[in-house]
Amino acid sequence: MRARTIASQPHKVHVIVLEKGEEVTASLLAFARQAAIGAAQFAAIGAFSDVVLGFFDRGRKTYDEIPVREQVEVLALTGNLTEQDGSPRLHAHVVVGKRDGSAHGGHLLRATVFPTLEVVVTEVAAELRRHIDPETGIALISEVVRT
Amino acid sequence: MRARTIASQPHKVHVIVLEKGEEVTASLLAFARQAAIGAAQFAAIGAFSDVVLGFFDRGRKTYDEIPVREQVEVLALTGNLTEQDGSPRLHAHVVVGKRDGSAHGGHLLRATVFPTLEVVVTEVAAELRRHIDPETGIALISEVVRT
Amino acid sequence: MRARTIASQPHKVHVIVLEKGEEVTASLLAFARQAAIGAAQFAAIGAFSDVVLGFFDRGRKTYDEIPVREQVEVLALTGNLTEQDGSPRLHAHVVVGKRDGSAHGGHLLRATVFPTLEVVVTEVAAELRRHIDPETGIALISEVVRT
Repeated sequence: MRARTIASQPHKVHVIVLEKGEEVTASLLAFARQAAIGAAQFAAIGAFSDVVLGFFDRGRKTYDEIPVREQVEVLALTGNLTEQDGSPRLHAHVVVGKRDGSAHGGHLLRATVFPTLEVVVTEVAAELRRHIDPETGIALISEVVRT
Repeated sequence: MRARTIASQPHKVHVIVLEKGEEVTASLLAFARQAAIGAAQFAAIGAFSDVVLGFFDRGRKTYDEIPVREQVEVLALTGNLTEQDGSPRLHAHVVVGKRDGSAHGGHLLRATVFPTLEVVVTEVAAELRRHIDPETGIALISEVVRT
Repeated sequence: MRARTIASQPHKVHVIVLEKGEEVTASLLAFARQAAIGAAQFAAIGAFSDVVLGFFDRGRKTYDEIPVREQVEVLALTGNLTEQDGSPRLHAHVVVGKRDGSAHGGHLLRATVFPTLEVVVTEVAAELRRHIDPETGIALISEVVRT
């Protein structure tokens, strides 16, 4: 376990409303770039007209794709924005609910909003950097830079 | 995408414990009214003795009801409090877990707490207003008023 | 409903990265002890190589164990750190996703991280104390001490 305590003040909170047809990962990365976010966590609810979930395959060191091609409620979408090699990096996991109330989820690969996605992004007063872990090929948080 | 950055300080955090038999949506709206909350996000865990989930039907522009008439763990209950036409408005999505570990969820329509629901409400230093979207009939966040 | 409003400033935010093979509940309790946390909420995403979920049995007043002995994505892990009889106390619920995208979840009893779990812990400027509820045998939040 590596733990870093960050004096949280002052931090900024961003309320982002994604609209019909917007793709989630591209929109959040564009926002992070534009707002120059070094590190943040977020939580969102809303609905998607389609989504592609990911499940990490330890053998192949990549994500299996699980497409969900139907309208779903976004029950919980949480994650963080960090930085990797100078660019913003999104790590988000999502739980979605189908028409029958069953819940499904995974790593968020792609999703299209319909009709809305309400995201609250809370910055933390530090920069979190990711680097590739050789064993898994995944970019893990490896460094915290206080600002 | 519409994004608003809100200077988050000072903000208030409220810890709310709902007790056996209390209905969740009425309790949270009563709290919002009493505490005069203009905008907040929240996250909760606990358990329900029954819950009615909603799934938005795009054709009928209303929520299908999915009743779950059994004891469930509240795995994630997240959402926001905003304002619509001068009254507090709750938007919450929930994931619940049944006795066999299966997860289910949807828009939160009604729920009865048993034995407890622990809610942390974090105000954001702004007012968020909703207005009806003509295409879907849903009240979307359409305006951010800085306070 | 019992509600306490806590002046949230100054509060601390902790970013904790759990690594391959670490057990989650022991790690978070060790962190709470070491950082002397009186009250905090947290949210995490990542993945487990195995997890034991709990479902509270109202008759037996204890948790049924639901073991999940396979790699799963941690879709949402949320909860709080409080204090009971002078020791830190963890209350966490989790939603996990299997290889087929199905979601499962419950009270978090035990879990092993693989390859990472990213936890953001936000302290609240108060102490939350738990005491045993005689009807259910569960330790409920019963007292808020402002600090």
